[in-house]
Amino acid sequence: MSLVKDITSRDENFAEWYTDVVKKAGLVDYSSVKGSMIICPYGYAIWENIEKILDQKFKETGHENVQMPMFIPESLLNVEKEHVQGFAPEVAWVTHGGSDKLEERLCVRPTSEVLFCDYYKKIIKSYRDLPKLYNQWCTIVRWEKTTRPFLRSREILWQEGHTMHATEEEAVNEALRMLHIYEDFQRNVLAIPVIVGKKTEKEKFAGAVASYSLEAMMYDGVALQNGTSHYFGNGFAKAFGIQFLDKDNTLKTPYQTSWGVSTRMIGSIIMVHGDDRGLVLPPNIAPIKAIIIPIGDDEPVLNATHLVCDELKKLNISYKVDDSNKTPGFKFAEAEVKGYPVRIEIGKRDLENGEVTLVRRDTLEKIKVSMDEVASCLTSLFDEIQKNMYDTALKRRDQMIYEANTWDEFQEIAKSKPGFIKSNWCGDEACENKIKDEFSMKSRCLISDEEIHTNCVVCGKKAKYRLYFGKQY
Amino acid sequence: MSLVKDITSRDENFAEWYTDVVKKAGLVDYSSVKGSMIICPYGYAIWENIEKILDQKFKETGHENVQMPMFIPESLLNVEKEHVQGFAPEVAWVTHGGSDKLEERLCVRPTSEVLFCDYYKKIIKSYRDLPKLYNQWCTIVRWEKTTRPFLRSREILWQEGHTMHATEEEAVNEALRMLHIYEDFQRNVLAIPVIVGKKTEKEKFAGAVASYSLEAMMYDGVALQNGTSHYFGNGFAKAFGIQFLDKDNTLKTPYQTSWGVSTRMIGSIIMVHGDDRGLVLPPNIAPIKAIIIPIGDDEPVLNATHLVCDELKKLNISYKVDDSNKTPGFKFAEAEVKGYPVRIEIGKRDLENGEVTLVRRDTLEKIKVSMDEVASCLTSLFDEIQKNMYDTALKRRDQMIYEANTWDEFQEIAKSKPGFIKSNWCGDEACENKIKDEFSMKSRCLISDEEIHTNCVVCGKKAKYRLYFGKQY
Repeated sequence: MSLVKDITSRDENFAEWYTDVVKKAGLVDYSSVKGSMIICPYGYAIWENIEKILDQKFKETGHENVQMPMFIPESLLNVEKEHVQGFAPEVAWVTHGGSDKLEERLCVRPTSEVLFCDYYKKIIKSYRDLPKLYNQWCTIVRWEKTTRPFLRSREILWQEGHTMHATEEEAVNEALRMLHIYEDFQRNVLAIPVIVGKKTEKEKFAGAVASYSLEAMMYDGVALQNGTSHYFGNGFAKAFGIQFLDKDNTLKTPYQTSWGVSTRMIGSIIMVHGDDRGLVLPPNIAPIKAIIIPIGDDEPVLNATHLVCDELKKLNISYKVDDSNKTPGFKFAEAEVKGYPVRIEIGKRDLENGEVTLVRRDTLEKIKVSMDEVASCLTSLFDEIQKNMYDTALKRRDQMIYEANTWDEFQEIAKSKPGFIKSNWCGDEACENKIKDEFSMKSRCLISDEEIHTNCVVCGKKAKYRLYFGKQY
Repeated sequence: MSLVKDITSRDENFAEWYTDVVKKAGLVDYSSVKGSMIICPYGYAIWENIEKILDQKFKETGHENVQMPMFIPESLLNVEKEHVQGFAPEVAWVTHGGSDKLEERLCVRPTSEVLFCDYYKKIIKSYRDLPKLYNQWCTIVRWEKTTRPFLRSREILWQEGHTMHATEEEAVNEALRMLHIYEDFQRNVLAIPVIVGKKTEKEKFAGAVASYSLEAMMYDGVALQNGTSHYFGNGFAKAFGIQFLDKDNTLKTPYQTSWGVSTRMIGSIIMVHGDDRGLVLPPNIAPIKAIIIPIGDDEPVLNATHLVCDELKKLNISYKVDDSNKTPGFKFAEAEVKGYPVRIEIGKRDLENGEVTLVRRDTLEKIKVSMDEVASCLTSLFDEIQKNMYDTALKRRDQMIYEANTWDEFQEIAKSKPGFIKSNWCGDEACENKIKDEFSMKSRCLISDEEIHTNCVVCGKKAKYRLYFGKQY
């Protein structure tokens, strides 16, 4: 059981626990390339599932996939001023091709707004060309100084949607529509109860009019921004000179959105659901939903294993059989590290009663079921596990959201309790900065549906907004 | 019908015809980034189909997907000497991260042998760790001076498999197994009759012991290397110090393969099957198998259109309805440019006889079918089109393969007839070079199953090999 012993306790040292789990579950390995990670088969299989499910949603909502260049000439990056200021400090620059110095250096895309705008300028001429609903799955590069697997990496696998619309209203709706597709996905597939809302001016994306984000709370109370959707107005479109002839025969500038999620979501799955035994995967995203462990190699055991496999195959449930020559105890521990939602133990004694044992990864509960009920039982068990994982995460998160109405309350909570603080704010960046400087807590997002009758938690003036504050990864 | 008029005739100027087709069919567009193309939705949808079909084959044969870094530190690229000499002249170098100069420059991967070896060194310790059967779908970069969409681009979307085996035999078998998976795919899905065989020493991949390639002949008789599979022996493994403890308790060096195909295959689909009206897509790879064109908007036409759509949906046949307000003639021409395998014309007059008209893209033949037979007719029609496209391409290719047994014959054919020349060769690189220098024809691949009883076509000495020569893209 050395696998389990090797995992640091998450209450003892959460950062070490995280690194132990990503490594021992076989999600990621380190490479000799500083700041770049290797995504191992098991980690990549999770990403493939994410990609498959989201890509289908994107297509159902009328989006088309394209592939833009991965390089951006410096002059093109410079077209939109706020944007270049936001990204230039963290891009990788290509200066030579073979042995020749390039006339103009190129950065490896940190995001592709300018590439899409450059293309849209070519292809958008008339209202008939709108909306343009494009998406791409690709790798982007941000030259981070310190990196952590999935959370902060120099190379990031992600998708980025970039759309253009005839009207402001349609573009705002698109940004919100995609935000809600992400929200549904994270709640129902990843079992992560995300808070969604608008970012403050200070925290919004470089060049956006409004940024919406999905904020997940990790086990340690720290926030992970699990995706964003931006409404750009027509700032980029103006900077790039994109215009279309509208139905009324006048030239207009279109309105733009972009939205993206990345492998960072895998980090959130680990840190929301994992425990001291390792990874815990929600059934709806697990590459392998059930691990079958035959105990011993007696004929009844082998026969029962075949029968169970056949049943799972019929129901299209992904499974794996661990028939290696490791000890059962080692196999159980390994199955727990890998976070397979259900373990099926097939042993001689159980079989004498016509039974096998199912072990839930989320609760570690053991359930004896008769052989002929394995398949039907599993299907409902996956639903139950999925629901329980979401409910548990939600309960835990809500217990770690605190309310602060005065600066004294805020300080008290910020110093003693990990989690989010729900509070009131006047809208002045100085107050937002004070919280950041004193407690390393950033505003997470605004809460739009609550009326404000209180005062700013920092300066005591009349509050304009309710919002969440929290430390972040 | 301006769309069709705008396409250069392929017999007049094949290069311009090609550029016209890729552009007007909406496969690719040019970007402001020199040497990098934009893959448009229709082109990317073809790539997604390629990826889906091949990825399933790879998984069925036990391969797992991973994601390696996209950057290679210069020192790592330098580990295997032949390999670095082959690739260093054509890589893009990253020298700065943000405003800081990097201590060691990094190239953007032109291929990932060294990255996989570096990783395999970490994870292969015992015979139990073998074989390792990894693949990745990614973008690679080669700093080409002159570029053409899909054929030669600075950025290439591809897959690269990299495997490690305990024995030489197993590794050779793997290289051949993947070669044959490619071959089946290209024949049965892309309807391209490829010639497969071993490359000569001169033409093999930098660092490989043996390279096998798939050689397709384009309409103009020029070869396109449509994929490769390499057996590396243990040269890389030795250079990287990869060793495993075998069953007999001795340390051994494993044997390696790599294999890849890229978006270049889309170029071959265009150049093998396309005609003066545009693209012609084999049904087995077409993102849209049938385009439905209602003629006019009378109620019987609209009703019939709905009925046909419902039928196709039931059979899971991908289709699109062109109900735009363009003229029928324009729609027909556009459908031909896009290469949809079948066009379904639904018109008032046909409907009076209870019929619609199917138009095959490959032969342009019109077939009247009764409304209730559309679906069943389509299914067999797709098979027929697929077969006809393959047979036509095969016949055409075989007509353009010539046999040369003397230098006079060789010169005569090389000067006057586009296509491949099947010939005999002593194995001396000087003879191979002479053909390359005088006729820009490279050896394509060896023919292994024919016995040699003749003399080298260049020097007249005893021949050791039979092989194909041909100009290439």
